[in-house]
Amino acid sequence: MPTISLTTDFGLEDNFVGVIKAVISSINPKVNVIDICHNVRSQGVREGAFLLKGAFKYFPRKTIHLAIVDPAVGSNRKKLLVETKNYFFIAPDNGLLSLALKEEPPFKIVEITNEKYFLKPVSDTFHGRDIFASVAAHLSKGKRPGEFGREIKKYNTIELPRLKRKPKELLGEVVYFDRFGNAVTNIDASTFSNFIKGRKFNICVRDKEINKLSRSYAGGGRQAPLALMGSFGYLEIAVNCGLAKRYLRLKEGTGVRVTLK
Amino acid sequence: MPTISLTTDFGLEDNFVGVIKAVISSINPKVNVIDICHNVRSQGVREGAFLLKGAFKYFPRKTIHLAIVDPAVGSNRKKLLVETKNYFFIAPDNGLLSLALKEEPPFKIVEITNEKYFLKPVSDTFHGRDIFASVAAHLSKGKRPGEFGREIKKYNTIELPRLKRKPKELLGEVVYFDRFGNAVTNIDASTFSNFIKGRKFNICVRDKEINKLSRSYAGGGRQAPLALMGSFGYLEIAVNCGLAKRYLRLKEGTGVRVTLK
Amino acid sequence: MPTISLTTDFGLEDNFVGVIKAVISSINPKVNVIDICHNVRSQGVREGAFLLKGAFKYFPRKTIHLAIVDPAVGSNRKKLLVETKNYFFIAPDNGLLSLALKEEPPFKIVEITNEKYFLKPVSDTFHGRDIFASVAAHLSKGKRPGEFGREIKKYNTIELPRLKRKPKELLGEVVYFDRFGNAVTNIDASTFSNFIKGRKFNICVRDKEINKLSRSYAGGGRQAPLALMGSFGYLEIAVNCGLAKRYLRLKEGTGVRVTLK
Repeated sequence: MPTISLTTDFGLEDNFVGVIKAVISSINPKVNVIDICHNVRSQGVREGAFLLKGAFKYFPRKTIHLAIVDPAVGSNRKKLLVETKNYFFIAPDNGLLSLALKEEPPFKIVEITNEKYFLKPVSDTFHGRDIFASVAAHLSKGKRPGEFGREIKKYNTIELPRLKRKPKELLGEVVYFDRFGNAVTNIDASTFSNFIKGRKFNICVRDKEINKLSRSYAGGGRQAPLALMGSFGYLEIAVNCGLAKRYLRLKEGTGVRVTLK
Repeated sequence: MPTISLTTDFGLEDNFVGVIKAVISSINPKVNVIDICHNVRSQGVREGAFLLKGAFKYFPRKTIHLAIVDPAVGSNRKKLLVETKNYFFIAPDNGLLSLALKEEPPFKIVEITNEKYFLKPVSDTFHGRDIFASVAAHLSKGKRPGEFGREIKKYNTIELPRLKRKPKELLGEVVYFDRFGNAVTNIDASTFSNFIKGRKFNICVRDKEINKLSRSYAGGGRQAPLALMGSFGYLEIAVNCGLAKRYLRLKEGTGVRVTLK
Repeated sequence: MPTISLTTDFGLEDNFVGVIKAVISSINPKVNVIDICHNVRSQGVREGAFLLKGAFKYFPRKTIHLAIVDPAVGSNRKKLLVETKNYFFIAPDNGLLSLALKEEPPFKIVEITNEKYFLKPVSDTFHGRDIFASVAAHLSKGKRPGEFGREIKKYNTIELPRLKRKPKELLGEVVYFDRFGNAVTNIDASTFSNFIKGRKFNICVRDKEINKLSRSYAGGGRQAPLALMGSFGYLEIAVNCGLAKRYLRLKEGTGVRVTLK
């Protein structure tokens, strides 16, 4: 049974997600739909890209990752179908796929144009329903990517904020908060370990200094700030039994400085 | 595999939805359950009716649409099983089905009374679990509607607020806000186009005037108010890159006036 | 098709639940995953235990109940796999299962240690993904509990706050609020009826007195406080067409006193 994953900013207050699943199920009843997240901040392309990147590789091979955060719906932005070694991705061409595709490079990129696979009439307000869900469902029935449009070579990308590096300093920032108030930074595990190379270090965030990596959120005293490599694959700032976000007054963009001693 | 859709005000904070699905799955493990929405405002019969109406027709034929917003649970309000050309509907008889049934007229209406298909003992507080989910699951196994009770002819209806029409004026109001802050009115697409008949018009809401329909939310300048025919099938007031609800200080009931120039 | 139920505090704002389902589906694509609740208060072991207890017995026999509220993830707390007459349970050993296991006593308790069934590398921050989901999926494929580790005899338990009993008085408290603002107490149905034995009684909460059990939430006048046996199996305080929580200014821990007249 093929799998389709969903990452959207549709929320769960309306009927949008239900409609998407209804469209998929009407075209291919034998598909397993798994929600990655529907609570991406409204029009939060970077947040959606980040959540998709952190989740896609846990899915079965050949999963179709359908991602819809689409502030420009109805404009002339392209619609992408991307094939990689292990997966398919479908999304508007606004960078939403680009963090995942950095890890899993595209074999083939198709601009979706073949109206044969769209729901008619196509609205200008809900391509998620009329185009994306319909195309994903047809793809899950075994249609080949080339049937949905012509191959193209380029797609739009977004980046996490860039790290600043000096010989003895690595300057990153908070890019995401999870439900537990943990602050995920843009300092990935391999950059961090290449920079540290086993030497002593300090991590500064606001007025706090942390001089080691904890293995888990349960380390340290109550309310003590911690740093650790989290499940997203990035350095996280956390507080034992507390919300780091609130306790350290962090925001997206708050600087996190790693210095060698 | 039969499909059951769910539209409820049970929310996702408790275990109510999980229990409903457990009951269904215990009776018929081979059913595909799709959530339309569980975040209908608590006891919001009209909101539930509106969300069901906007979603039901995207589902596969023979889907059983189970809707539970049931402020009078445990009273003597009836429990309905309705068969239409393409679907089945199950709900308390409080108007929850009536907006959908206006589009998809009933062939057969059954008052659910046959306790053989109820979970025992039947509580007075959770008919969703003890009656509705159980009946839906048995129906999905191929039982005929007549097995669940006797046929009746009438059911309770609710209406969206009525439009006021004058020769050169159409007066509607906001009836729903979606997650993006777009204001959905009670002016449906065909009423609007029959009224306008290609002539010039003004749409007034609060102190703003809009003199054209946009095709998508992306039109106009940033923060510019827009009007468009949205995916619910009604005239919507939106703000490009903003929340119309907040930006224009709209509420449910705020008037939206369309005048011919 | 085997069923896995999920009860977690992962929320629906991140991608954690999607990742859990991806891991399960990668190991066993033929499993039916049903969410009990993912909005357990962050690190709310007692709340999770309460929601699981109220839901587990509605699931098909042999369902694997996977529960993850795990403030001590990465520490040396044990990981449990429990077999009962009708179900399997998997959870960290922090009491999360104990309210359910009071109703459905364990046949066999296994401490999960066999790394063969873990995702590699095992993180210290997300055992839900790397251990619990993976073990649940392997168990759903028919592996025997003994394959996952050695049998143990003890597990940690938590209790609801204890009732205080006097000859003519039963003193309980509010332990949970549902979405509708109904206050669920720790006075269970059989304790209540054994105490009352058909005699007249008063239920006092804040400055309100209630002298009968209603059968449903719809009883009494608007805004009138009610008491009833709710679907969780405990005495609930409710307000007709209102939020008891707000209307009566209740909190978790607010006393509810039942006195014989």
